[in-house]
Amino acid sequence: MPDYQNQNLSLRFDEELADLRNQVLKMGGLVEQQIQRATDALRKLDIAEAEVVSENDRYINGFEVTIDETCTRILVRRQPAASDLRLVIAVIKTITDLERIGDEAQRIAKMAIHIAENDGVFHNRYLGIIHLSEHVIKMVHDALDSFARLDTDAAFDVVRDDEKADIEYQAVMRQMLTYMMEDPRTISECLDIMQAARAFERIGDHAMNIGEYVIFLVKGKDIRHISIEDAEKDILT
Amino acid sequence: MPDYQNQNLSLRFDEELADLRNQVLKMGGLVEQQIQRATDALRKLDIAEAEVVSENDRYINGFEVTIDETCTRILVRRQPAASDLRLVIAVIKTITDLERIGDEAQRIAKMAIHIAENDGVFHNRYLGIIHLSEHVIKMVHDALDSFARLDTDAAFDVVRDDEKADIEYQAVMRQMLTYMMEDPRTISECLDIMQAARAFERIGDHAMNIGEYVIFLVKGKDIRHISIEDAEKDILT
Repeated sequence: MPDYQNQNLSLRFDEELADLRNQVLKMGGLVEQQIQRATDALRKLDIAEAEVVSENDRYINGFEVTIDETCTRILVRRQPAASDLRLVIAVIKTITDLERIGDEAQRIAKMAIHIAENDGVFHNRYLGIIHLSEHVIKMVHDALDSFARLDTDAAFDVVRDDEKADIEYQAVMRQMLTYMMEDPRTISECLDIMQAARAFERIGDHAMNIGEYVIFLVKGKDIRHISIEDAEKDILT
Repeated sequence: MPDYQNQNLSLRFDEELADLRNQVLKMGGLVEQQIQRATDALRKLDIAEAEVVSENDRYINGFEVTIDETCTRILVRRQPAASDLRLVIAVIKTITDLERIGDEAQRIAKMAIHIAENDGVFHNRYLGIIHLSEHVIKMVHDALDSFARLDTDAAFDVVRDDEKADIEYQAVMRQMLTYMMEDPRTISECLDIMQAARAFERIGDHAMNIGEYVIFLVKGKDIRHISIEDAEKDILT
C-alpha cells in the first residue's frame, strides 16, 4: 500500500478517536448541567425545573448507547493497541459513571418535587447540602477537565477531593438526624434531604472513578483499590 | 501455517475465554456470599459477622482488577470480533457491577454494626428488609446463572424482577417512616434500616444491569434505556 494511503488511514483513526473524546465531553457537559439544574430545583423547590431534569435524562442515556456502539465499532474495525485501547476502555467505563450521575441528578430532582408537593420548606439550615452539591459539581467538572487534557495531576486532585465530599456528606446527615429528633414533624422533609445528600455523595464517587480512569489511561496503571498514598508513590514518582 | 497449529491457537483462545467466564462466576459466588453474610449480620446484629464482610471486600476488589487485566490482555493479543468481543465487553461491565454489589454489602454490614453498637434491636417488624434481601440475592444468583448458561429468557426474568424489588423497597421505606413518626426514639435505628434497604435496592439494580449485559452478549443488542415491552418485542420475537 502506498504510504499516503497508510497516512490517510491513520489520520482518519486519529479523527475518530478525537471525535470519541469530544462525544464524552459533550455527554459530560450535559451531565454537569443536570446536576446544577437538580440543585437549583432543590434550593427553590421548583417543580418545573425538576421536571426538566427528569425529561432530559433520556438524552444522557442516548449518549451512553451511541458512544458505547462507537467504542465497539472501533474495537472491531481498528483493533487498537496500547494507549488507543486504553482510551476506548476508559471511555466505556467513563460513560457508565456519567450515566449513573445522570440517574442521581434525577433522584435529586424527584426529592425536590416530593418536598414541594408536601408543602415542605427549604430552610436555610439545609444549606449544607448546597455546599455539598457545589463541591461535587466541581469534582465532576475537574474530572472531565482532566480527561480532556489527560492531566493526571488534576485527576489525582479529584480522587483526593472525594474524602472531603464524604466528610461534608456525613455532616449533613448528622445535622438532619438532629433536626428530626428535635422536631419529628420535619422527619419526612429531612428524609428527602438525606436522600438527596446521598445522591450527591454518590456523584462524588463517580467523579472519583472517572479520575481513576484518566490515570489508568495516561499511566497505564490501575489505581483502584490501593490507597492514595501508595498510588502516588507508585505513579507520581 | 499447518492446520493443527491454527487449531491449537483457537483451542487455546477458547480455553482463555472459558477461563475468563469462570473467573467472573467465581467472583459472583463470592459476591453472593457477601450479601448473604451482610443480611445475617443485620438480622442477628452480629458484629463479628459484619466485620468478616468488611474484611472480605478486598478479595472482590482483587478479582475486579485481575479480570480487568485479563480482558485488556485478550483485547490486545487476540483482537476478538463479534461474539467474542461482546463477551469481553460484557465481562468488563459485569465485574464493575459485581464490585459495586460488594460495596453495598459492606454498607449493609456497617449498618448492622451501627445498630448493634447503639444498643438497637432488630425488631420483627423490620422483617420486610429480610424479604427484600432474599429477593435481591435471588436476582444476583439468577443473573449469574443466566450469564453462565447464556440464557436470555432467564436474563429477562431478572430485568423484570427488578420492578418487584423496587415495590418491596418502597414498602420498607414507608413502614420505617411510620415507625419513626410514631416513636421518635426509633429514628436512628430506622434510618440505619432505611440505608440498608437502599443498599439492597441498588443490589437489585446491579443484578438487572448484569441481566442486560447477558442479553447484549447473546443477542448483540443493547436493551438498556428502552422499556421491557419494547425490548421483548425487539428480541424475543
